[in-house]
Amino acid sequence: MDTVSEVARLRHQVAGWRREGALVGFVPTMGALHAGHLSLVRIARERAAAGSTGGRVVASIFVNPTQFGPQEDLARYPRAPERDAALLAEAGCDLLFLPAVETIYPPGHATFVEPGGAARGLEGDVRPGHFRGVATVVTQLFQLVQPDLAVFGEKDAQQLAVVRQLVRDLHVPVEIVAGPTVRESDGLAMSSRNAYLSPDERRRAPDLSRTLFAARGRALHGETDPRLLEVDVLRQLEAAGLEAEYVEAVDALTMARAERIAPGVALAAAVRLGKTRLIDNVLLVDPEEATG
Amino acid sequence: MDTVSEVARLRHQVAGWRREGALVGFVPTMGALHAGHLSLVRIARERAAAGSTGGRVVASIFVNPTQFGPQEDLARYPRAPERDAALLAEAGCDLLFLPAVETIYPPGHATFVEPGGAARGLEGDVRPGHFRGVATVVTQLFQLVQPDLAVFGEKDAQQLAVVRQLVRDLHVPVEIVAGPTVRESDGLAMSSRNAYLSPDERRRAPDLSRTLFAARGRALHGETDPRLLEVDVLRQLEAAGLEAEYVEAVDALTMARAERIAPGVALAAAVRLGKTRLIDNVLLVDPEEATG
Repeated sequence: MDTVSEVARLRHQVAGWRREGALVGFVPTMGALHAGHLSLVRIARERAAAGSTGGRVVASIFVNPTQFGPQEDLARYPRAPERDAALLAEAGCDLLFLPAVETIYPPGHATFVEPGGAARGLEGDVRPGHFRGVATVVTQLFQLVQPDLAVFGEKDAQQLAVVRQLVRDLHVPVEIVAGPTVRESDGLAMSSRNAYLSPDERRRAPDLSRTLFAARGRALHGETDPRLLEVDVLRQLEAAGLEAEYVEAVDALTMARAERIAPGVALAAAVRLGKTRLIDNVLLVDPEEATG
Repeated sequence: MDTVSEVARLRHQVAGWRREGALVGFVPTMGALHAGHLSLVRIARERAAAGSTGGRVVASIFVNPTQFGPQEDLARYPRAPERDAALLAEAGCDLLFLPAVETIYPPGHATFVEPGGAARGLEGDVRPGHFRGVATVVTQLFQLVQPDLAVFGEKDAQQLAVVRQLVRDLHVPVEIVAGPTVRESDGLAMSSRNAYLSPDERRRAPDLSRTLFAARGRALHGETDPRLLEVDVLRQLEAAGLEAEYVEAVDALTMARAERIAPGVALAAAVRLGKTRLIDNVLLVDPEEATG
């Protein structure tokens, strides 16, 4: 696996692959990789290989400053580029793009991609400007890498919805593929931010996914009122000592609040555990059809 | 020349040309074409042909609703697609993309490209939201057409600066080429909106360019204070009965207000003549180097 920081080298490499007829899959990350990221790389590899001979995978590591709020954890966000590079190579990544901040945001940068729709509510309310930063850097990275497909984790359900929306709204010729959430053996969704948890917090963190899966069980057994599930989950999180920022049943494609529990509706929640924010979501009812 | 409205056909055609090794030049327009637009097509043709064998040119006609304000002339903007198609074919255009509004803005569209920097001041002040609409549709069209280069007229100096900025900020792999303003024999900059002028207004309209060129003459003869030129032009426009919205000396690349008259500084003005808005600009001092 090659690692490049310069745009010209990145473009040269990808253009070469494309001339050879390879599909190019892309996995954008902020580094501090875990098994969830590596599963996205494997999905990208399979999809690129299925659609072409010699499909290729590009991953990027870029801790994007514009998606962090002023009070957020940009400075202390975990960074381990050498370990990450070894993991990516092992997972079958062909090229790692590791740009400097000044490469992505040249002096005088002043153009942002502003998502409405799916960016409203949930994370969009708690983290003002977050999805503007996400939409901007994803658009930038798509222009830089020019992939045929890109894989995003379902764990960040609203981010996935925002990216699908921007690709459709701006007509970016990239296919968006969703990667299932990868969980620890006790159910905790993998996240680079789990590293912030103290041993005691880490023991309590799985209460988030446990509560969401219990609600999914109730939905599978006939509960149809999303408000009842939300309230129930809120109470259980409270009882477990997790401070909930939101618990909402939403359409996983549009992030619109669900009026009833129907195919494609997810239950999404954000909690604070000490100084750490955790988010998670589960589909209450699987979608009726693929929506790639 | 083929005319296509569907995205799939557009992409198929352009992808075919690219496989043959042709560079693809692009000229986005709102139709109601005049000699200025056709000069941009010829420039696109020359540039695409110079960089490849069999260079190709795509033009689009799309009256973009998002760049019009609620009080502006969207509904009455001149439309003449058949005449336009004949003119484009004659000028050497290979493919006309003529999308429906719902193709560019699918139901639920909610993602916009928001330009700061060069979009501030001048037209950005008089027409709130205008450059957001321009930046969004230009980004969309670049994603749809995937050209190697695109040509924009210098007559819309701030639009040109906003497009250059968005391409740089979002890393869109398109080279932006500027086309010189084409003028009527009496100096009036060609514009589709000149069709709105009554015969009397049309006789008075060249006072705008005349006044700007007189200011350029003063700059060439040693005037270095941009504020003096601005005030002078304002007075002359007033005396000629043209209602000025702004007269500003700006850096043509950044649209920042010029503190002194230096290479690359343009004098830009907008006036109202009856119900019609006219804009024009002249470079006071040519740039020292090419900035394509």
